Amino acid sequence: MQKTEPKTLSGFMELLPNEQVLFNEMKEKIQKTYERFGFLPIDTPIIESTEVLLAKAGGETEKQLYSFTKGDSNLTLRFDLTVPLAKYVSLYSNNLSFPFRRYQIGKVYRGERAQRGRFREFYQCDIDIIGDGEVNIINDAEIPSIIYKTFKELGLENFTIKINNRKILTGFFEEINAKEDSVNIMRIIDKIEKIGEENVKKELSELGIQENNIEKIIEFIRTTGNKDEKLEKLSKLNVKNEMFNEGLKELSEVINYIRLFNVPEEYFDIDISIARGLDYYTGTVYETFLNEYKSIGSICSGGRYDNLAEHYTEKKLPGVGISIGLTRLFFVLNDIGLIKAEKNSISEVLIVSMVKDLKPAIETANILREAGINTEIYFDEKKLKTQFKYADKLKIPYVIVIGETEIETKQMTLKNMKTGNQEQKTIAEIVEKLKK
Amino acid sequence: MQKTEPKTLSGFMELLPNEQVLFNEMKEKIQKTYERFGFLPIDTPIIESTEVLLAKAGGETEKQLYSFTKGDSNLTLRFDLTVPLAKYVSLYSNNLSFPFRRYQIGKVYRGERAQRGRFREFYQCDIDIIGDGEVNIINDAEIPSIIYKTFKELGLENFTIKINNRKILTGFFEEINAKEDSVNIMRIIDKIEKIGEENVKKELSELGIQENNIEKIIEFIRTTGNKDEKLEKLSKLNVKNEMFNEGLKELSEVINYIRLFNVPEEYFDIDISIARGLDYYTGTVYETFLNEYKSIGSICSGGRYDNLAEHYTEKKLPGVGISIGLTRLFFVLNDIGLIKAEKNSISEVLIVSMVKDLKPAIETANILREAGINTEIYFDEKKLKTQFKYADKLKIPYVIVIGETEIETKQMTLKNMKTGNQEQKTIAEIVEKLKK
Repeated sequence: MQKTEPKTLSGFMELLPNEQVLFNEMKEKIQKTYERFGFLPIDTPIIESTEVLLAKAGGETEKQLYSFTKGDSNLTLRFDLTVPLAKYVSLYSNNLSFPFRRYQIGKVYRGERAQRGRFREFYQCDIDIIGDGEVNIINDAEIPSIIYKTFKELGLENFTIKINNRKILTGFFEEINAKEDSVNIMRIIDKIEKIGEENVKKELSELGIQENNIEKIIEFIRTTGNKDEKLEKLSKLNVKNEMFNEGLKELSEVINYIRLFNVPEEYFDIDISIARGLDYYTGTVYETFLNEYKSIGSICSGGRYDNLAEHYTEKKLPGVGISIGLTRLFFVLNDIGLIKAEKNSISEVLIVSMVKDLKPAIETANILREAGINTEIYFDEKKLKTQFKYADKLKIPYVIVIGETEIETKQMTLKNMKTGNQEQKTIAEIVEKLKK
Repeated sequence: MQKTEPKTLSGFMELLPNEQVLFNEMKEKIQKTYERFGFLPIDTPIIESTEVLLAKAGGETEKQLYSFTKGDSNLTLRFDLTVPLAKYVSLYSNNLSFPFRRYQIGKVYRGERAQRGRFREFYQCDIDIIGDGEVNIINDAEIPSIIYKTFKELGLENFTIKINNRKILTGFFEEINAKEDSVNIMRIIDKIEKIGEENVKKELSELGIQENNIEKIIEFIRTTGNKDEKLEKLSKLNVKNEMFNEGLKELSEVINYIRLFNVPEEYFDIDISIARGLDYYTGTVYETFLNEYKSIGSICSGGRYDNLAEHYTEKKLPGVGISIGLTRLFFVLNDIGLIKAEKNSISEVLIVSMVKDLKPAIETANILREAGINTEIYFDEKKLKTQFKYADKLKIPYVIVIGETEIETKQMTLKNMKTGNQEQKTIAEIVEKLKK
């Protein structure tokens, strides 16, 4: 028979089982943390009508889309979980309770240029709190506490949630009469960590910003000190602009409330240079960095927006949310060695039979599985050595050996595969030991 | 601003949060049961190269494909999880341990004619055991025990796993000199539950099967009695054909071993008419029916195949597996009322504050969340009535009310939203009560 070369498309992550176990554990931890904070799950289709998905998008994004026709429908694979959320909330608003706290974990598609560590299919793990008309500012403070909890659950340390408020930026630019360049200035200063101060100055100058204003902008976004000092310095700028002061008030409130949510001081900070490229954010914005690996970029970003679904509905639906790009996060954490796929198996026990009659092995498995212990039986008639090799390769923690003696004495041999230690135990004793 | 009508494509299931909670619970139960039996997770891309995905397919399937081009690549969305598994095992065979026990739960795409209860995007929940060269027949018996456990976990009763062995059919057709029509005969008799005996006879006749052979076939597939009687009757047919006898031996072994796996007699049966349409099954085959809703069709099917990946590799990879079409299963169970979305919330507690300072509410939430209790705080400054309405609508089981008195006495009001019962409790007492 003619063979087709089995291959996986480039830019599509496909893991070996041991890595997949780790990936799934991370995904489950994120999910459980989101649920701990009372978020409800939704699951929207991966395929949507192009018209619906692009109601808002345009420009850059369109080139990256996976779009196609089927019959006479123009279809597109979702490129994020925010647009489907906007559609969902518009479509079902009468059936939802507001504030609507939803999480969604699922794959999204972007046909980016293939390069190491960039994926065309990747998981996003999103939470958003959507209000009907309004969303209390305290939600903006709860979000960082969820980011904190999530990354701690994932075993990460040394990360900082950087917080800003776009009203402060917009207000400041208004104050220095650069209102019409506001969006462009934000896009430029947002890159300061990546491209450096000199390049930011250069780009601002190219944009036509006057020299003295460039200095003001740089000084402004470089506001130093601890959080309270930064807030005080901002306040002492004596900016009259109303939006600036509204943003500053919100930022102060958010910082104070984050403390109430028990997020330790070293895990969050104010960073005036954080603007988020997307122009639909209108208030609080977040980015999260690994302190020792800043070049990776933000591993969890988001913010507040005034109007989630203006393209679909007259309803005013403000909200605040974040997204974790899990596929890339997994890749980089694995790459820098902060996580390591160690479990090759889901099974806690492998049952190995030295007698041809598998009845005792199956009965033992029944009892273990009934007790909630993930159990596998080696069915193939292979040498004991081969069976142990299998357990070893899969890193199954325990092997139970059943032979003539074991059946007679009702004492089975339980081997700890890590230590090599062997014990004779009844099935009840084994259940008790493994359930711990 | 001009509005785009928010809509979801027909044939794509999109659930309200309360239904989604139920759906996810079912998905998680299936996953946990698969893991209980030691299956490893894999997660392949939804998009594959068309060439790879269609190495084996053809005919009927192609029309249903979601295929498109991106750049100069021909791409197709996966239509099942079996072909991606074949690719995966061929691609990574050197890194896998055999027997390879894998599960995969994910969405697949088929552009079927849209009709009620048929979906174009749906979840499949698959397990397969792949051997390198061979797979012991006991695996064929373990599979029904997994089906049994899974559906019991899902809360189903009154279902029957129907088992057959295609070698018995093939051998029998050889015996009556209808070998070349074998696949077509199987395709026809497989429909007997759906179209009835008369139509099966008619179709067999149209196929050119002689009258006396049609009678033999019908008598054969209608073999009655309990499992042991059926096995005995088949044996007494005195068929000389080797394949028939091999199949009969395998079926007997499978039936005996299923008993060892503690599957109660009423949950499994032999059904000689089960053939499975797909021609790649070569031995044991399964279908699972709800006894009172047979017209729904099989809710879990599968079987044994000799060669999973012959289109990709020279390696002989036999296996046995099953698939649950969860999206359709959820739809029909919901439709006939065997499941009901009752929980509208993920939260176990809603904290409601009667004082403006939310500090005590947040501190209470911190403690509950730390204890693993899913907790939500109502942040918006709304009337108490509105806050309770929210809890009621979302069916959150408990509400904690914090007011001046509660703060002074450190006794909070815990209201059971179902019974209306209110108690004064310390936070420690509340944690203890809710953790149960």
